[in-house]
Amino acid sequence: MQNEVIVYSISDSLGETSQKLLSAVMVQYPNLVFHNNYKFPFVNQKEELLPILADALRDKAIVISTLVNHELSEVAKSFSRKTGLLYIDLMHPLFEIIHAKTGMQPIEEPGAVHKLDTEYFNRISAIEFAVKYDDGKDPKGFLDSDVVLLGVSRTSKTPLSMYLANKGYKVSNLPLIPEVPLPKVLEEVDKSKIVGLTCHPENLVRIRSNRLDSLGLHQSSSYNNLETIHKELAYSQEIFDHYGNFVIDVSDKSIEETAFIVEHHLKSL
Amino acid sequence: MQNEVIVYSISDSLGETSQKLLSAVMVQYPNLVFHNNYKFPFVNQKEELLPILADALRDKAIVISTLVNHELSEVAKSFSRKTGLLYIDLMHPLFEIIHAKTGMQPIEEPGAVHKLDTEYFNRISAIEFAVKYDDGKDPKGFLDSDVVLLGVSRTSKTPLSMYLANKGYKVSNLPLIPEVPLPKVLEEVDKSKIVGLTCHPENLVRIRSNRLDSLGLHQSSSYNNLETIHKELAYSQEIFDHYGNFVIDVSDKSIEETAFIVEHHLKSL
Repeated sequence: MQNEVIVYSISDSLGETSQKLLSAVMVQYPNLVFHNNYKFPFVNQKEELLPILADALRDKAIVISTLVNHELSEVAKSFSRKTGLLYIDLMHPLFEIIHAKTGMQPIEEPGAVHKLDTEYFNRISAIEFAVKYDDGKDPKGFLDSDVVLLGVSRTSKTPLSMYLANKGYKVSNLPLIPEVPLPKVLEEVDKSKIVGLTCHPENLVRIRSNRLDSLGLHQSSSYNNLETIHKELAYSQEIFDHYGNFVIDVSDKSIEETAFIVEHHLKSL
Repeated sequence: MQNEVIVYSISDSLGETSQKLLSAVMVQYPNLVFHNNYKFPFVNQKEELLPILADALRDKAIVISTLVNHELSEVAKSFSRKTGLLYIDLMHPLFEIIHAKTGMQPIEEPGAVHKLDTEYFNRISAIEFAVKYDDGKDPKGFLDSDVVLLGVSRTSKTPLSMYLANKGYKVSNLPLIPEVPLPKVLEEVDKSKIVGLTCHPENLVRIRSNRLDSLGLHQSSSYNNLETIHKELAYSQEIFDHYGNFVIDVSDKSIEETAFIVEHHLKSL
């Protein structure tokens, strides 16, 4: 049994699609070492492609292609057939199905996914929005938000905001701190847009202790004290009961998973 | 010729991989309407899967699967063979190649890609870092950054910072404004970590005018005046000459493309 594998990614654009697939595949093999730094973006000439394929063959590599150009993809396919190169084309099987179904051909424009269109500019301004209205910096932003995230410290408000912003949502967030009065404007926000974030107290102790460590503060403080955290979470539950009723427990959830739940909630409104 | 197509995405996790592929495919068919809101995440029972496949068949849909479970994937494959359902499995062709090459089988753990590991927590703290040190808010952050972005207003510093942060880089950025003196700490930053962003003056006029419009300010100002912009860009070029020599022209580039260039530069150091 071999416990290493070399993967080449070839694309006529950035190659993000094959990287995404590869990440999903790699985690399925915790005992296999993937050498996946063989990335060949912006390949658009047969003369560039052939030497890469020859190197891959020499390296006994697996090749993942997201080439949209039909001619290049045929070159790679025929090379693989002749030489036994392990080759996977992610795009053309779907292109063929779409052709069979609709008679349409792809425009074969590499990187068309990065078109600077309206949707793209909305995403950019959503990111700027989220940075501007992060951490309750300016509560006026709550009124223009698609979603307002509330939660005590370390319930992943900021990374969740940025992740959702990257998908085009206008997000603001507010830390809940028992001693600090809430901004009045929160009363004016549509309750369905308010999402509460909560977490198991024990998880929060651990996360906050790590946080203190990373700041070079190794003593315990009220910040990572279980009793204080219980009080903070009880306070945050009161706020959620008053201002909104949609609450997500983020314990053991990744940002992607929590974001998925938020999106699902927003779409159901 | 049919100009609409229905796409079902089936996954035992969130289904991000198939969405990524689908985005890349969709832009290749500007004249085809994709109904791709048929997303079925967290499918992990045969009893859930079969009705979805039956619906897909009825809807004459194309089905994209990222199911990692072998049994479920076999169920879908055999259903498609029997019924003629248009079915694409993104994961198993690669699993088979890896098996042929290494003898290894996937662990078949859905969503393993979202494991809350060290890399994941580094990404979270990189996002928090980028938010904290955005817009020159605290120049001390420059010293701990993997990259410091410099550029005049509207050269995409903030969205680029967040995009790179999401990949785990610690990023800070500083707006260049002719009248505002630069923070002294910039002199101490390793020059190879400083990246300048520039843009065609005409593009900047357009982008800034849109920006003013979006703020409800329809008059022209020095902000979107070509002559002022020329001066600002000349000033920024002086700064780049002094503090670093790596400059990216962001005109007509998407954030993804600019980020790709920055990453490539950082890896080459």
